[in-house]
Amino acid sequence: MNTFGDKWSFTSFGESHGAAIGGVLDGVPAGLHIDLDLIRQELLRRKGVTGNGEQAAGVSPRVKNEPDEVEWLSGVISQQPIANSQSSLVTLGTPIAFIIRNRDARPEDYEWLKHTYRVGHADRVYEQKYGIRDWRGGGRASARETAARVVAGCLAKQELAQKGVRIHAELVQVGAETDPEKFNETIAAYRHEGDSIGGIIECRITGLPVGTGEPIFNKLQAELAFAIMSINACKGFEYGTGFGGVTQPGSAINHISGGIAGGIADGTDITFRCVFKPTPTTPKALAQLLNAPSPVTGNPSPVTNRSDSCLATRAVPVVEAMTALTLVNLL
Amino acid sequence: MNTFGDKWSFTSFGESHGAAIGGVLDGVPAGLHIDLDLIRQELLRRKGVTGNGEQAAGVSPRVKNEPDEVEWLSGVISQQPIANSQSSLVTLGTPIAFIIRNRDARPEDYEWLKHTYRVGHADRVYEQKYGIRDWRGGGRASARETAARVVAGCLAKQELAQKGVRIHAELVQVGAETDPEKFNETIAAYRHEGDSIGGIIECRITGLPVGTGEPIFNKLQAELAFAIMSINACKGFEYGTGFGGVTQPGSAINHISGGIAGGIADGTDITFRCVFKPTPTTPKALAQLLNAPSPVTGNPSPVTNRSDSCLATRAVPVVEAMTALTLVNLL
Amino acid sequence: MNTFGDKWSFTSFGESHGAAIGGVLDGVPAGLHIDLDLIRQELLRRKGVTGNGEQAAGVSPRVKNEPDEVEWLSGVISQQPIANSQSSLVTLGTPIAFIIRNRDARPEDYEWLKHTYRVGHADRVYEQKYGIRDWRGGGRASARETAARVVAGCLAKQELAQKGVRIHAELVQVGAETDPEKFNETIAAYRHEGDSIGGIIECRITGLPVGTGEPIFNKLQAELAFAIMSINACKGFEYGTGFGGVTQPGSAINHISGGIAGGIADGTDITFRCVFKPTPTTPKALAQLLNAPSPVTGNPSPVTNRSDSCLATRAVPVVEAMTALTLVNLL
Amino acid sequence: MNTFGDKWSFTSFGESHGAAIGGVLDGVPAGLHIDLDLIRQELLRRKGVTGNGEQAAGVSPRVKNEPDEVEWLSGVISQQPIANSQSSLVTLGTPIAFIIRNRDARPEDYEWLKHTYRVGHADRVYEQKYGIRDWRGGGRASARETAARVVAGCLAKQELAQKGVRIHAELVQVGAETDPEKFNETIAAYRHEGDSIGGIIECRITGLPVGTGEPIFNKLQAELAFAIMSINACKGFEYGTGFGGVTQPGSAINHISGGIAGGIADGTDITFRCVFKPTPTTPKALAQLLNAPSPVTGNPSPVTNRSDSCLATRAVPVVEAMTALTLVNLL
Repeated sequence: MNTFGDKWSFTSFGESHGAAIGGVLDGVPAGLHIDLDLIRQELLRRKGVTGNGEQAAGVSPRVKNEPDEVEWLSGVISQQPIANSQSSLVTLGTPIAFIIRNRDARPEDYEWLKHTYRVGHADRVYEQKYGIRDWRGGGRASARETAARVVAGCLAKQELAQKGVRIHAELVQVGAETDPEKFNETIAAYRHEGDSIGGIIECRITGLPVGTGEPIFNKLQAELAFAIMSINACKGFEYGTGFGGVTQPGSAINHISGGIAGGIADGTDITFRCVFKPTPTTPKALAQLLNAPSPVTGNPSPVTNRSDSCLATRAVPVVEAMTALTLVNLL
Repeated sequence: MNTFGDKWSFTSFGESHGAAIGGVLDGVPAGLHIDLDLIRQELLRRKGVTGNGEQAAGVSPRVKNEPDEVEWLSGVISQQPIANSQSSLVTLGTPIAFIIRNRDARPEDYEWLKHTYRVGHADRVYEQKYGIRDWRGGGRASARETAARVVAGCLAKQELAQKGVRIHAELVQVGAETDPEKFNETIAAYRHEGDSIGGIIECRITGLPVGTGEPIFNKLQAELAFAIMSINACKGFEYGTGFGGVTQPGSAINHISGGIAGGIADGTDITFRCVFKPTPTTPKALAQLLNAPSPVTGNPSPVTNRSDSCLATRAVPVVEAMTALTLVNLL
Repeated sequence: MNTFGDKWSFTSFGESHGAAIGGVLDGVPAGLHIDLDLIRQELLRRKGVTGNGEQAAGVSPRVKNEPDEVEWLSGVISQQPIANSQSSLVTLGTPIAFIIRNRDARPEDYEWLKHTYRVGHADRVYEQKYGIRDWRGGGRASARETAARVVAGCLAKQELAQKGVRIHAELVQVGAETDPEKFNETIAAYRHEGDSIGGIIECRITGLPVGTGEPIFNKLQAELAFAIMSINACKGFEYGTGFGGVTQPGSAINHISGGIAGGIADGTDITFRCVFKPTPTTPKALAQLLNAPSPVTGNPSPVTNRSDSCLATRAVPVVEAMTALTLVNLL
Repeated sequence: MNTFGDKWSFTSFGESHGAAIGGVLDGVPAGLHIDLDLIRQELLRRKGVTGNGEQAAGVSPRVKNEPDEVEWLSGVISQQPIANSQSSLVTLGTPIAFIIRNRDARPEDYEWLKHTYRVGHADRVYEQKYGIRDWRGGGRASARETAARVVAGCLAKQELAQKGVRIHAELVQVGAETDPEKFNETIAAYRHEGDSIGGIIECRITGLPVGTGEPIFNKLQAELAFAIMSINACKGFEYGTGFGGVTQPGSAINHISGGIAGGIADGTDITFRCVFKPTPTTPKALAQLLNAPSPVTGNPSPVTNRSDSCLATRAVPVVEAMTALTLVNLL
């Protein structure tokens, strides 16, 4: 349930406002020098901070406040004179455990959620499924867990880079807007309205060896779809000619493989696209919740909006991370 | 690679023009009376034959010629006086092996394929991946293997029906056409042109218990996407608001769950859609192949078109089967 | 439950008196020329027939009567002019399915078993676990299924041989007897008494590369113990200093690794031993059963003894097969 | 490799002298109140401290010095007013991560090990397998990792207790001694000689429901053997009539099932036995190492003995823990 892959096996854990989130990565070859800078950079990117330090629009205060410092617990050894120093870590071939403490956890901000189910969130089904629910900001269902995916994905990317495989994702559409220069503006406009908006991410894989993918069930596209659809708020996955290809006759599109034939990489670039829905918890939605009495207390609940306005912005490095974890398990 | 699921574990085997295709289904509870009529009917449906016996347009001769008789090898016992009679089979709780002989296997029709790679097919990548290739009509990459999926899916459907879960898929678009009455006509028109066309299938799941789905990786939508994207020629999967939802603000679509929240069934109907590309081997494509000299002999190759014109037509029961196998593994 | 290994994944199926037993072997590399002679020889060895054609003592008529012909259904291609000829089979890299028909199946001989549970057999627990039971000669619990293990093991042995790994098992003790020359005599004596006897098999692995084994759970010795203890009637597994070493101080036996250190092969030979209990269904035991009234009919049941006298004799190639399947999954 | 079980899936991590050891337990039902007292008590037992607070003979200083405090990182929620308090923890149904810091980690004590391979240890094979080795006291190969197994096993025991299943292991033999009253004396005598000694543990399972165990590969005895043989220093596993039964005819022992028939629990008590070799690093062995020059420096290495004298003493709760984890995955 919380383990992805059987060769580079990644087990994720942690609730949004619990002690920590983290993961265990088993199967990583010994001798990999972990690129701590890459990890820092990707975690920033997940917070909506771009390479030149600019902050994307519509990112929640919680996300901005979390320092996202990674603590390495096992599976690595420092090659510095002082043992356990984390400045230069080399993998041992044993399971790598890491944690990120929840520094800005504010369970008290979510007391009102104890007795309320937010529309478009998993609050209700978690309670129905498990009989108990971590009401602290979405608990396990919060997108905070994607930080652990990003860390694990960085190690996978390092391994892939050594084999000449590159992964690059980017946001290609926000609402009806397809000009990246106008994305921040579009998001800000929706936020200004107390609303939120979805987006489409495109991801390109280059350098993948011919033969990657294991028919008939573990086809490359099936593995990618599984990985990407497991990301919060993702509603669709397509590759090659995708949904748009339905109106094209075979004679027009036969030559488009999308980089995969019969479930196996054919040596050309692979491009897939995925769509993310708008954040459900908008100020507008919260206002409705306020007007409605709590199912338990009968009174309206005092609420705080700590959510993003366009999840897709921050999902870009997560899409790359899941793609990297998928590929490293297939190679 | 060829096993799907870990509770109802389905292992598929077989090449299109080898001795047989078949499967082993492990984990099926004891005491299930196999509905042999349902299996016959679903195998017919996979051949493009509808309930009233009509044959869909554009189905290949091979498909029509195969009797698709299922032989049960293990995991069942007859409750008739004569042991091993197959008229009334009850499951034993042990692995159920079944085979379908390839009766209309004509490897000789594919001799020309020994030295040719068809555009849009997996011929080349199979040879690159494995170093050897079953050139007999696509071998393992042929859609013939989906017959085994349909058989296994029928048992899964029986189990689901007992729990009140129903699955219904149908073709909702062929090319640009969305009126089902006109699908046969549309397909016939493309075939007449020596061409082929894709389609979109919509599948609805009703009665699924709240709580089905295992976050964070084995979310219900991720498992469904994995299953569906493993079907030959499938190029995309979406559920709920899907790709079309990207232009809608959160306030307009927050209430649409698509039947799944946080990766867990929320008790409402689940609807997903998937798109199938046109058959790549069209008469047009074959004609091009004829004009091009074989990479080995240098001469044009004599070829026979044994392919469908719209794969999506016949994929409908396969989509249902894979959905059923997914759900039965999650329940 | 009926699948062993995740790289060379072997799925076994079949009941003793059903249509067939067989298996699917997924993950075998393409291009392996199957050694059909080796398979015939190992299946004979499993029937108690030695290299020079002699028949071991105490083997049941059923075992002797079964021709054990292997039919290959998929995953192989003949390199002979005539397709599907089985004289020269090469693997395709796709799942290899094979069956062995139950030719001497005589369900009618076991009618009496419908209402009787044999002492020392799994008759009762199967009925308790599954609610239904294949009473035909033990059904799935019969040692007949080990024939499929032997076939799969032969392919694994071929792969291992190419890597310089050799496996050799032999019977080293029957009852109190440790002189192999006297084993047949010992078994015959017990059979003459209407009784049965157990034995110990020793297995030696040579040439295994240093590093084989995956701590901390999938240690080499743990994987071997799992594989060997899954064989019918096996009651114990030990390696290196084993149980006998308990009385020796560390200073005397520290240097004995048994070929494994920390769960990892250390490059020296590995020797393990396993013990098999006596066949439970002896003429003596059957006589007791005859005297006892059937739980259903109230009358004594007419019975036929179709069992071996010393299971350990025939388990030798099965021990080798399971060892081979274990190693091929770890390499 | 470091994950055990697929229903209650336990992933272990950590090196002996790294930052921490720990684990993630996925699949534990929501609503379980963790018995922190049981965990403390079992961790003490693993340190050789019995119920009345007595310390077993021959336990190393490192083991005694480690406080073994468990920190819970995720998957639990406190029902106390103060969130994240660890006094009363209830499981959430999400992955439970816990760590035990290595407080008495003294990597500097093992500097000499950087260039030395200890006889009977995994030092050399780890370096051969991974190319790099954590020389700090055995690293991952140290028995320190068993503390994490004990913690996970306690949760499994709680679940089993609710279903009426009890597990009890005890030391039944040390060297040639079988009188438990004399075990401490025997161990002390070997330690006095600068030597070490092995032992046999017997484990009894009561209350296991009929039907537990999944033939034909995942037989109950095979799963137990796999779990127990994965414990450091374990050299053999037997159940029922075991190795001793080889000299008994079928007529004498047919009725002894050992609690398992055909790989399935038959409702009677299950008793198995396992043997642990003597600690390899004895003062005697270290003295030999001192006399031998280091392979790198050419000089004798200064060493410290931080090892136990009889591993079997402390393995008792580990045997119980692995048994519990096995059963909870099969039920």
